[in-house]
Order: sequence, then structure tokens, then C-alpha cells
Amino acid sequence: MTATPVRVAHVGLGAIGREVVRLELRRTDVELAAVCDIDPDLIGADLGTVLGLDGISGTVDAQIVAGLADAGLDAAVGDLVVTHTTSSSLARCLPELLAAVERGAHVVSSCEELSYPWVQAPEESARLDAAARAAGVAVVGTGVNPGFAMDYLPVVLSGATKRVDAVRVHRVQDAGQRREPLQAKVGAGITTDEFARRVAAGSMGHVGLTESAQAVAAALGWDPADTTETIDPVLAETPTPSAFGTIEPGRVAGIDQVAVVRADGVERVRLHLQMAVGIGPSQDDVWLTGEPDLHLIVPGGLHGDLATAAALVNTVGSIRHAEPGLRVMSELRPPRPAPTR
Amino acid sequence: MTATPVRVAHVGLGAIGREVVRLELRRTDVELAAVCDIDPDLIGADLGTVLGLDGISGTVDAQIVAGLADAGLDAAVGDLVVTHTTSSSLARCLPELLAAVERGAHVVSSCEELSYPWVQAPEESARLDAAARAAGVAVVGTGVNPGFAMDYLPVVLSGATKRVDAVRVHRVQDAGQRREPLQAKVGAGITTDEFARRVAAGSMGHVGLTESAQAVAAALGWDPADTTETIDPVLAETPTPSAFGTIEPGRVAGIDQVAVVRADGVERVRLHLQMAVGIGPSQDDVWLTGEPDLHLIVPGGLHGDLATAAALVNTVGSIRHAEPGLRVMSELRPPRPAPTR
Repeated sequence: MTATPVRVAHVGLGAIGREVVRLELRRTDVELAAVCDIDPDLIGADLGTVLGLDGISGTVDAQIVAGLADAGLDAAVGDLVVTHTTSSSLARCLPELLAAVERGAHVVSSCEELSYPWVQAPEESARLDAAARAAGVAVVGTGVNPGFAMDYLPVVLSGATKRVDAVRVHRVQDAGQRREPLQAKVGAGITTDEFARRVAAGSMGHVGLTESAQAVAAALGWDPADTTETIDPVLAETPTPSAFGTIEPGRVAGIDQVAVVRADGVERVRLHLQMAVGIGPSQDDVWLTGEPDLHLIVPGGLHGDLATAAALVNTVGSIRHAEPGLRVMSELRPPRPAPTR
Repeated sequence: MTATPVRVAHVGLGAIGREVVRLELRRTDVELAAVCDIDPDLIGADLGTVLGLDGISGTVDAQIVAGLADAGLDAAVGDLVVTHTTSSSLARCLPELLAAVERGAHVVSSCEELSYPWVQAPEESARLDAAARAAGVAVVGTGVNPGFAMDYLPVVLSGATKRVDAVRVHRVQDAGQRREPLQAKVGAGITTDEFARRVAAGSMGHVGLTESAQAVAAALGWDPADTTETIDPVLAETPTPSAFGTIEPGRVAGIDQVAVVRADGVERVRLHLQMAVGIGPSQDDVWLTGEPDLHLIVPGGLHGDLATAAALVNTVGSIRHAEPGLRVMSELRPPRPAPTR
């Protein structure tokens, strides 16, 4: 049952990235070869200190190319998997992804826009796909959402149906149970005017919902091009405690976001995400309409941050079996954990 | 979104097999090239008559080799997928599986013992694996159970966890909602003595539960060798209507079957299957103990017969992307349906 551990280099030491590295250090199926970040305050820092762990040796490397060289990448194409957590923006990640791929590393990234980039970023997608194919490696964007709860899970469930006519997912996350940055991200405590201003500026809302909807559509044979997305505030109805103090009634408690894919004018995919302080209970629901209809429930919901770190590390084993190129999760064998040390 | 349909030859025209062929005729992602059975009464019969469908041309072929030749198999290795529904017994299926594989066809079979044959049938497994690798094709055993509800689904769910310590699945199927052969299979209406006699003779119970438990264990890094299975009767408590008349209290209404895998003395996997007339409501529950704990519910449960036919046809697309050899479902990308005609 024991296989040779997979060598991994990690890039990006934000909150999720540190969680990924902590997990990689514990897992028996991976061997951490290098850890990289671009932050000058982190470069050369003691890894144990950065992670808040005792008994860890090593320092943080300067940037991705140096880190990969340290990892002895040149040994064999596909011998190294880069786990990558630097940005939600594909445009910002692209140079890093290309650097890894061109050196012969598979990449598993938390970049939300990478989870299904073909519609929003066709040129970047084609460029990354070509580079990965040329290098004989695979690249995928994943996490819990996008990457699992609202896309991979409904596609998996569809495997038990003869025909699917429509997919609907409802994910409720009580942001009050989540870390402070998530509460800030969903606008906890701001006014409806400020909410509207941020939506107009494109800085409000969960990144990746459109990508999830398109990933589901494409996996089930529907053209994902016609996708619409809406973002509305969830308002506090009573005084609601949050990481930023009490949210008064009428102020924003979080977001209510919907992405819909229509193909030939027929609604095929509807993903509804509610993340707000005090909105609980958290839960994931998947409904398939078809032959037969199916309903799947995850009471309590899949945990956002924890499951994203898990999904990334669990996909390390899957990406090595993927066909070369830019992949989407539904093209990968199921990620799964391995025993920890 | 449209790809070239995959050519398929189907072998075995029992109830599930006919359902598979009916689905293949409707699906846009497959093109049915041949249908085979060994029953002398079926060979040469009009396919539309056998299936109870109008507007279908073609006849039933004599046996697998002839059927494959009809399908023009020699064109290219891996160009044809055989869907196969002849027996639960790997020993009985093996010659058919080898014949298909050796002619360069991928195989998706409903043979329950094929879903994870490595522990119970190591020699047959190694032989089939070697033949498939030599031919450059893949073989897998699947269906809804084994193949999905109690094995693939928990493995998929584990992808959202950092660590799994134990897996527990409880599947309740109200046999009263299922076809007559299923009610007969679970012993509806027989005495407890007769039940015990059939258990002792090895002719009672659901085939594949041990294989499902071992598939889960292996996918999560636990040695599947130490597996135990028990079968007990579910007794009718009140007069219960069935396909065979009323089941009197104290008579058998169905089965209560448990498979457990222990690794290093620790219980890791516990699959509990209850199939009985009047036992409803049907439901599938999956619990993972780990980091974090997770619970997944499919209210109403995944439909046995319907979902098995679906799972087989849906896996046609996945098997073509699998690595050559004898595969288990957790090594395959998620099966999914395609639009129907």
C-alpha cells in the first residue's frame, strides 16, 4: 500500500498556502522539496517560524524558478508537482504557471479563475495548454469552491443518472464560523451603498462561481458560453456579532451570488452561493433533474479553507495521472487523502 | 461540445444488459456497433423485438468474438469499448473479458467480483491486468453497487478532507420498490431456516460488498486484506406485501449485510447494506471520520437497477482515458452522462 512519495514544491505563503505546506509536511504521500514566496520579508526566513511549527528545517526560497531548481527538477519531466496559491487572478498567476510548466512540473493551483478558464480567458488558456502539452505535464485549478463543492460533486453524482436535464447547487456558508478575511471578503458590516460600489468596481463577491457553472456545463455536454452572474447583499435582520463588531440591522451580513448557464436558451446549471455572518446552518445541496432526479446533501457543508488546502494536496496524486495540458477537475481521477505521519 | 461518438459493443442481454443497450441506443456519445449473447434463443433474433423497441434494426450476435469482428474492431486498439453484463462471477466472466481485451477493446463490466478483484482473485486479476496492459486497453468492473454508492462516492468525498481515519456507509434499499428478481435475491418470504441454508451454501446476499469495502480501503492507503463479512436476515414484523404475496411476521423480508476492513487491527471501513421489502425509506449515508468529519446523504438512495445501467454507459467515456490494465473505479475520471437523442 506504500508508494514512493511524490516530490512537491509549494509556491505562495498566504493563509491557505501555509495550511497547504503544513499538510504537505504531515502527509506520507508527498515529500516537500521547496517552499517559495515573492514577499521580501519571507525570502530566506526560517520555514518553521513562518509556519508556526517546531522541528521544521529549511528556509523560504526567493521565487518559483529558484525553488524549482532547488527541488532538482531537471531530473525528469513530471517528477515534481507544484502546489500553487498566490492569486485568484489568472492574469497574475500566468507567468508563474508557465515557469513551472516549462520546467516540466505538473501544477495544482488554487487560482479560482484557472478552474475553468476557457470562456473568460481563451487566449491565456490556449497558451498554458500548449505549454503544458509541449512539456508533457498537466495543470489544473482546484480547491473546495471552485473545484469540488459546486462543480466536481454534482458532476460525480451525475454518474448515477441516465440523463441530466439540469443541475442546481445551493451552498450556504455561515461566514461567522470562518476566518476574518472571509468575513471581510463578503462585506460583513458595510452599508448597502458601499456594497453596490464594490460590486460595480468588481471587487465584491466570490471569485470562481462562473467558472464552476461553466465547468459543470462543459462536463455534461452543454455549451458554457451563455453564463450570467448576479451578486446581491444579504442584510442583517437583527444585531449580529461578527469579527468586526456587531452588524446592525440593515447593514450587510454577506453575499448572495447566483451563476446560471443557459444552452440553446434552456437553463441547465444554476449555482447559488450564500456566504454571510449568521446565515447558518451551513449546508451543501445538489439537485439533478433528469432520469432519475437526484438530491445530495452535505449537512454542515464542506469547510471552505480547510477543504481547499486538503483538495490541493489531495490532487497531487491525481494530476500525475492526467493527460498533458490544461485540465479541469472532471478530467481527473478523484483526489483523496493519504495517511499522515 | 460535440465529440465523435465512441463505438460500443454490448455483451449480455439479461435485464440490466437490455437496459444498457436501450440507453446506448439513445445516447449521443456512443454508437452501438454490435450486441451479443450466448443464449441460443436470442442469437439471430431481431434486436428491436428483444428490447421491446420500435424502429431498431439489427440482430443479436452469437458470441463476443463474432460481435467484436462485426464491430470492425481490428481498425485500432482502444477504438471500441465493450459493455459487459453476463455474470457476477469473475471466474465465469474471465474468458469473455480476455477475449475482448486481447482484441484491443476496453471493457466496462457489471461483474461485481471484478470491481476490486485483487484480494479474492489475485491470479485472475494478474492475468487480466497483464493481458490488458499488453493490449494497451483498460478493464473495469462497475455499477451502482459495487462501483458507486458504497465505494466511489465515499472516496470522492474524502477529497475534501485532510485525513480520513475511518469510512462508514449505510445503504438502505426498500426492495418493495425494486423488480421481482431483487426481491427473490434478498429472500423475501422465505423462512429463517431456508435463509441460513442459503447463506451456508454461499447463494444468499449481495455480491460485491467485500469488493466495495476493499476498494475504499485501497484507495485510502489501507491494506484491504483483512476483510470480514456477515449476512443476517431482516424479518417482517407485520404482514408485508411483496412480489410473492404477503410476507408473514417472522419470515424473511430481506438481508442485512456488513463488510468490515481492518488494517493493523484498526477498523477502517464499515459498509452496511440493508435490502428488504418494506424497510424504507431508501437512503444512502456516508460518514467520514477524520479532519474534518463529513457526512453525505442521498435521500431516497441511488436507484439500483437504473443507476447500474447508467453507471456502465457513463463509464464508457472514462475508460478511454484510463491507463492500460485492470483498473478500479477510483482510478477513473468521474463517469457522467451525455445528452440523449
